[in-house]
Amino acid sequence: MRLCVLGAGAVGRAVAELAPEYDNEVTALADSSSAVVDPDGVDVEAALARKDAGEALGGASPGDALAAEYDVLVEATPTTLGDAEPGFSHVRTALERDKHVVLANKGPVAERYAEVRALEADSAGEVYFEATVGGAIPVCATVDDLGAKHVSAVRGVLNGTANFVLSRMAAEGLDYDHVLAEAQDLGVAEADPSFDVEGTDAALKCVILANVLREADCDTLDELREAAVTLADADVEGIRDIPGSALELAAEDGRTVRLVGEATRDGVSVGPRLVPENGTLSVTGTRNIVEIDHEYAGGLAISGRGAGGEETASAVLADVARLE
Amino acid sequence: MRLCVLGAGAVGRAVAELAPEYDNEVTALADSSSAVVDPDGVDVEAALARKDAGEALGGASPGDALAAEYDVLVEATPTTLGDAEPGFSHVRTALERDKHVVLANKGPVAERYAEVRALEADSAGEVYFEATVGGAIPVCATVDDLGAKHVSAVRGVLNGTANFVLSRMAAEGLDYDHVLAEAQDLGVAEADPSFDVEGTDAALKCVILANVLREADCDTLDELREAAVTLADADVEGIRDIPGSALELAAEDGRTVRLVGEATRDGVSVGPRLVPENGTLSVTGTRNIVEIDHEYAGGLAISGRGAGGEETASAVLADVARLE
Repeated sequence: MRLCVLGAGAVGRAVAELAPEYDNEVTALADSSSAVVDPDGVDVEAALARKDAGEALGGASPGDALAAEYDVLVEATPTTLGDAEPGFSHVRTALERDKHVVLANKGPVAERYAEVRALEADSAGEVYFEATVGGAIPVCATVDDLGAKHVSAVRGVLNGTANFVLSRMAAEGLDYDHVLAEAQDLGVAEADPSFDVEGTDAALKCVILANVLREADCDTLDELREAAVTLADADVEGIRDIPGSALELAAEDGRTVRLVGEATRDGVSVGPRLVPENGTLSVTGTRNIVEIDHEYAGGLAISGRGAGGEETASAVLADVARLE
Repeated sequence: MRLCVLGAGAVGRAVAELAPEYDNEVTALADSSSAVVDPDGVDVEAALARKDAGEALGGASPGDALAAEYDVLVEATPTTLGDAEPGFSHVRTALERDKHVVLANKGPVAERYAEVRALEADSAGEVYFEATVGGAIPVCATVDDLGAKHVSAVRGVLNGTANFVLSRMAAEGLDYDHVLAEAQDLGVAEADPSFDVEGTDAALKCVILANVLREADCDTLDELREAAVTLADADVEGIRDIPGSALELAAEDGRTVRLVGEATRDGVSVGPRLVPENGTLSVTGTRNIVEIDHEYAGGLAISGRGAGGEETASAVLADVARLE
């Protein structure tokens, strides 16, 4: 498949670099200000070297990339909330051209799910979004595989930054500010960590999952428009206000605290929860874990790396492979 | 899809009973001595009631079932080794009639993998076998999803009986014979438990996985014939000889013992292994867990119910859904 990769951050770069390992070719690669386009295959290494040297990816514009010859648009630009722009428009442009879309950007499927599905219905292209939930962990594919109709809930530890902070606070008895600073030094937390520590990132992932579950009960696009949820519908609490003492108290009881998100057909809630210290949800470091409750299969738990360039790219490329 | 279900044990029954929940219809159902066939849909409840009352499923023969009108053969007869008969012939008959095959019976894909793939290549039908490995846990689908080419190893605790016995020995300080008797009373171990406690069941599952991994490197059926492995190629050790004292010693070191099977491109080995007490592989009771090592996604771990009628049926029906 020929890929147009929009976004040259950690995920976009990794997708472009790993594409040949999955027998794909990159025919366009863009960041927010420039692009490189080549119907015979972009020299990804050279383009990224230019970017690393502070130059443009190439002589083309992002618009040229969107208009190029490709089979799959990989949307890996930063997640935006509300109208999910410019990501949503990228998705629309590709589908209107009958191209496939693989999202790593959560915005369009968290905030405008029914609209994305409506555009997809009118297109020869298909839309996949494994990489928007749980990094390398195949959550969406597994729910789809088991049959979303028979899945009652999906819950888990879905944000590596928040999990790292909480598991370090518990392991070392350090306070939040100290561990956050350490996480920032390690590159596990951003300079502005609010998206992660306030629970927004985990909530977006759960909103996407709730949309998948609700969609299983809808027979028409109109029903989906009614049923779809957005970030505004989620009940979200972050980890800023958890004192070190709360973790010590929990430990006395054989428990610890994790930022847990849950998606059911009723809605989404994200917040710090007491979990058994040696239980499934007390995964440590930046690892993520997802529990899926299925009517006949019972409870399944999948853990893995929730973030990272290569990890998330492997989910994007697994979606591309599904399209062939 | 119309299903012909061969086998009316725990798995076959559950597939036949749950088929309508997945929008399928059963047009033939057979056990080893009788069958019921109805192109308009078998009354599964009535047929199973007859069987429970000691009567025949119906007035037809198993051969009539194989010759009936259906889209998918569900092969859920008991796993047999060596020539994998009569299961293998059932698979061949269906594929020669251009029907799809979904296996719960491990024999054909553990012992005659290349032959099954060759028959499939000459057929309009496709072959799936999720239910042969890990019960409700989607192992094969996940390896396929991630790309078997990039998976270097799959390992795990794949036999619920052996795991139950070991985890009870560790938890209660009881010896093997005592716990095995308890497992048999609970229905967790068979009257003849050798298949489970000798590691044969776990080894068959790992052989199937090793075949999947090796197949990813083959370009032709001839290469697959060379590369495919069978139970005879596996290095297998069971749990009979583990004294209670070994578990106590392990516990002093923060470790325990589990029957772990591993499949790589190099081969298969199954045997008792020391694992960290609170680590991924120290799953308890009859639960199974599988670890998948992927080049780009990193390590993934999936745990769930490894056995059970409904659980295994959910894997069969997920495969049927894949065929649509």
